[in-house]
Amino acid sequence: MQIGIIGLGRMGYNLALNMRDHDHDVVAYNRSSNKVDLAVEEGLKGAYSLEELVNQLEKPRVIWIMIPAGKPVDDTLDALIPLLDQEDIIIDGGNSKYKDTLRRYEILKKLGLNFVDVGTSGGIEGARNGACMMVGAHDEVFKTIESVIKDSCVEKGYLHTGRNGSGHYVKMIHNGVEYGMLQAIAEGFEILEKSQFDLDYKEVARVWNHGSVIRSWLMELMQNAFTKDPNLDEIKGVIGSSGEGLWTVEEALELQVPSAVIASSLFTRFRSQQQDTFSGKVVAALRNEFGGHKVEKK
Amino acid sequence: MQIGIIGLGRMGYNLALNMRDHDHDVVAYNRSSNKVDLAVEEGLKGAYSLEELVNQLEKPRVIWIMIPAGKPVDDTLDALIPLLDQEDIIIDGGNSKYKDTLRRYEILKKLGLNFVDVGTSGGIEGARNGACMMVGAHDEVFKTIESVIKDSCVEKGYLHTGRNGSGHYVKMIHNGVEYGMLQAIAEGFEILEKSQFDLDYKEVARVWNHGSVIRSWLMELMQNAFTKDPNLDEIKGVIGSSGEGLWTVEEALELQVPSAVIASSLFTRFRSQQQDTFSGKVVAALRNEFGGHKVEKK
Repeated sequence: MQIGIIGLGRMGYNLALNMRDHDHDVVAYNRSSNKVDLAVEEGLKGAYSLEELVNQLEKPRVIWIMIPAGKPVDDTLDALIPLLDQEDIIIDGGNSKYKDTLRRYEILKKLGLNFVDVGTSGGIEGARNGACMMVGAHDEVFKTIESVIKDSCVEKGYLHTGRNGSGHYVKMIHNGVEYGMLQAIAEGFEILEKSQFDLDYKEVARVWNHGSVIRSWLMELMQNAFTKDPNLDEIKGVIGSSGEGLWTVEEALELQVPSAVIASSLFTRFRSQQQDTFSGKVVAALRNEFGGHKVEKK
Repeated sequence: MQIGIIGLGRMGYNLALNMRDHDHDVVAYNRSSNKVDLAVEEGLKGAYSLEELVNQLEKPRVIWIMIPAGKPVDDTLDALIPLLDQEDIIIDGGNSKYKDTLRRYEILKKLGLNFVDVGTSGGIEGARNGACMMVGAHDEVFKTIESVIKDSCVEKGYLHTGRNGSGHYVKMIHNGVEYGMLQAIAEGFEILEKSQFDLDYKEVARVWNHGSVIRSWLMELMQNAFTKDPNLDEIKGVIGSSGEGLWTVEEALELQVPSAVIASSLFTRFRSQQQDTFSGKVVAALRNEFGGHKVEKK
């Protein structure tokens, strides 16, 4: 089918190539034009403005937005909406907060535009060669776009999760689970690293990945990482986070679901960003006050 | 090679069959004789006493113990030691605490006996068709038994982790990681279950298992479980634990490794065993004292 893509970052660009490989007619737009040039070199159709993009697409248009969550999505929708016609389909394939998605869905519905939320997992490699997608959409809209979804994913790797918002919701929870799994693996390896045994972490990851209960893609990646850097000497233990773990915890709070593991994984990331902590100073100061325990001076 | 097996429980019995399938000469012993009868029907050699077992094995003997951790292992070693000769090899393939393993290794070494600790993962299915094994042993002892280890495991599914104790240690940490991964998955699904969306959990597990970052054997098992019981209506959320998670946390405390996720997963299991909590009563009572907040009466 014909599809326009807005956003040729690492995910969008690879997804566009993936779709092209499956004989979809991809028109690619990106704010900075050099990415569009690259896409054109790869044989995609290029568009150097939203107008150009919209004009190249047959109605009802299908436009896949693959840009950072938050304001960029709202800005893009604001610019795009005046150019569209009723029944056009806009797909947000990024990591948008599901509450934003529900809000945008309502706005677009009033304008006669169709909106679809797609949570995409599998990383850049997945975007290029077969992703995993969770799709929130009306049934008939889902059917219209199912072929391009199906072709972009590994076998059995997509699901119409339900009504609008559910795709981004299920992807958000996926990432929350990922936070917990990452931290569980991490704590295990730190205990191994501090232990009395002299272990080859790459080999431990390898054996855990063959026949054990915790075999997983993350453990494969762990083996890759230890293969490149056997004791992870070359990197710092500072962990970023891009929103979905936070939103999962916010959701757990709202729904009153005890989620100590996911919350603790998130807090561990926040802690990893700090050089020193004010809470540490508070406890040290109080222990000094009541027990005369030494404090470390700056 | 020739090998004696002590303990024909679910793991030991299936492992014995697995070894037989790979043309090892297995002599099987179990305390209750009906399991030995079953093994004999399957074409294994049977032994109805430790003496019979030991007498059927050529020196140096190789004897694999696959029984519950703790006192049963010490009792079996106490009964077995007087029957053995120097250089015989005893393998503990169960979930023994690594500190017990180190203690037993020292005792057996003084007696001229070889001891090997094997941490075994992969469940019953793994024991029967290909397990994952972490092996702590002297190099030369490992070489002597490597063929039977290799044949019992999936390809690439075994590792000589290092000196004695390290096999059980790495398996212990594997289980600690497993606690955290299980709890992360669990929290994710409980948020989905409490959410505003009407989701098919089996399908969510299925899509998460195809191309996503959290694809894993545990997610495959999750799909199986939801296939059998779509909302888990038939079971209670009460979780047992058999020691290795607890030992992982003890180890984290001893080594002072912040391990909030694994510890929290263990505490969640303890909580799941309680109908009501004394700590809950304490907080309710105090809120009532200072704020007049209602308490629920028995």
